[in-house]
Amino acid sequence: MSTDKITFLTNWHATPYHAPLFLAQAKGFFADEGVKVAILEPNDPSDVTEIIGSGKVDMGFKAMIHTLAAKARGFPIVSVGSLLDEPFTGIVYLKSSGITPDLGSLRGKRIGYVGEFGKLQVDDLMAHHGLAAADYTPVRCGMNVTRAITRGDVDAGIGLDKPPTSSSPTRAPPGPPSFAYLSRDLKNVPRDWDKVTRYGRRLGVLGDDFVPNYTNDFLDWPLDPDSADPADDQRRMADLQKDVACRGGFKRLGAAEVVEV
Amino acid sequence: MSTDKITFLTNWHATPYHAPLFLAQAKGFFADEGVKVAILEPNDPSDVTEIIGSGKVDMGFKAMIHTLAAKARGFPIVSVGSLLDEPFTGIVYLKSSGITPDLGSLRGKRIGYVGEFGKLQVDDLMAHHGLAAADYTPVRCGMNVTRAITRGDVDAGIGLDKPPTSSSPTRAPPGPPSFAYLSRDLKNVPRDWDKVTRYGRRLGVLGDDFVPNYTNDFLDWPLDPDSADPADDQRRMADLQKDVACRGGFKRLGAAEVVEV
Repeated sequence: MSTDKITFLTNWHATPYHAPLFLAQAKGFFADEGVKVAILEPNDPSDVTEIIGSGKVDMGFKAMIHTLAAKARGFPIVSVGSLLDEPFTGIVYLKSSGITPDLGSLRGKRIGYVGEFGKLQVDDLMAHHGLAAADYTPVRCGMNVTRAITRGDVDAGIGLDKPPTSSSPTRAPPGPPSFAYLSRDLKNVPRDWDKVTRYGRRLGVLGDDFVPNYTNDFLDWPLDPDSADPADDQRRMADLQKDVACRGGFKRLGAAEVVEV
Repeated sequence: MSTDKITFLTNWHATPYHAPLFLAQAKGFFADEGVKVAILEPNDPSDVTEIIGSGKVDMGFKAMIHTLAAKARGFPIVSVGSLLDEPFTGIVYLKSSGITPDLGSLRGKRIGYVGEFGKLQVDDLMAHHGLAAADYTPVRCGMNVTRAITRGDVDAGIGLDKPPTSSSPTRAPPGPPSFAYLSRDLKNVPRDWDKVTRYGRRLGVLGDDFVPNYTNDFLDWPLDPDSADPADDQRRMADLQKDVACRGGFKRLGAAEVVEV
């Protein structure tokens, strides 16, 4: 007996930025296209690349850097689209912790991270801001960085987490909600892939001649232009959310302005 | 690139009776045996039989009746062990609902069920207690029967749910906690398989010549004898839990008595 169901493995338990997948399933968009999708969730996010890369599961979600690293490690993985037009990994902390947008305030602090790449990212980010390895304590937290922060197990943390609490490491943490980065057209964004590829090279994860394994060839709808200013999108999303909180309604961040939908 | 990880799909999101699987993973029992297990959770329990049966996922959990029905439908599935020595599907309800252990009290009530087999079970159980189809309203609830009850969407429900709230349909609902049914040796219990097979025939799911697709041949440890009186086990578990609630400690229900471990 065979099955025509496509197995789709999320990168972690259901989380807000998975919304497009669950909405498509719940609203019947897959069924409309004659596609049957069985959505699976991993118990350990470290399994995902290997299970998809070896073909045991058909498709799935994984962060940009993991997708690139999968190819570098020999898994024949191709990225056919992005949920987010901008990576939203960032340093997050409690306002009450005394940490400030000046990353130097992380001196002497315990900094949580998810796994292997998170550690590389923390070390790179700290070095970039003049902190040596002895100046902070990295703590592996798995996917529960936010919980580790709120429990007091760490003072700050880096990782993919709930979008509302995350901001890009290239901006002052913690920034406004990053829902602005959810992609409307699901396209891979060359700017971000180039950036992440360069970042992967800097971290020593990718070789100098690495060619990114992404494509937009499977998307047959018109693609939006790249955002000219993602940080401004984020500010506009924060304003939009304040407006909705005050006045209600269902609104969407347009390419340049707020539109009623 | 291949993988030596075994994919293991649970029948639903992590739930108390999955404890043996998650404990084995967390405590390294699989690793001790040189086995790598990637635990996956489904988003829709209706996908599980087909995905395992078609070989897209290696192993998994599924209720006895689904395992039997899978074979009847041509999926080459074999059951190699049981989490529970006794099925704990049952009718559950709120004490405040006016429903009593007399199933006749379900007359005129809305009765929730999980899916296809749950509907057959409800109809069979009601007919067995003298209620016709017009005497009650069956309501499909998916895996959230307990939530539907507590929300007031239904008056009672049948289904696999959290063991502490479930009792067997062969006993007065709602019985004491059914943790007593967690299997210590993980064996398939011939008595229950025979019972479920007969039940499957009565429901019209299995043919008269159906041979159950279970085996204990893969278990290479000594198997406990069958429980002589599962209902008494359940009562003793309730007593044990009261005792632990009063006096603390970590205790286990022995074959005949409570033992300190």
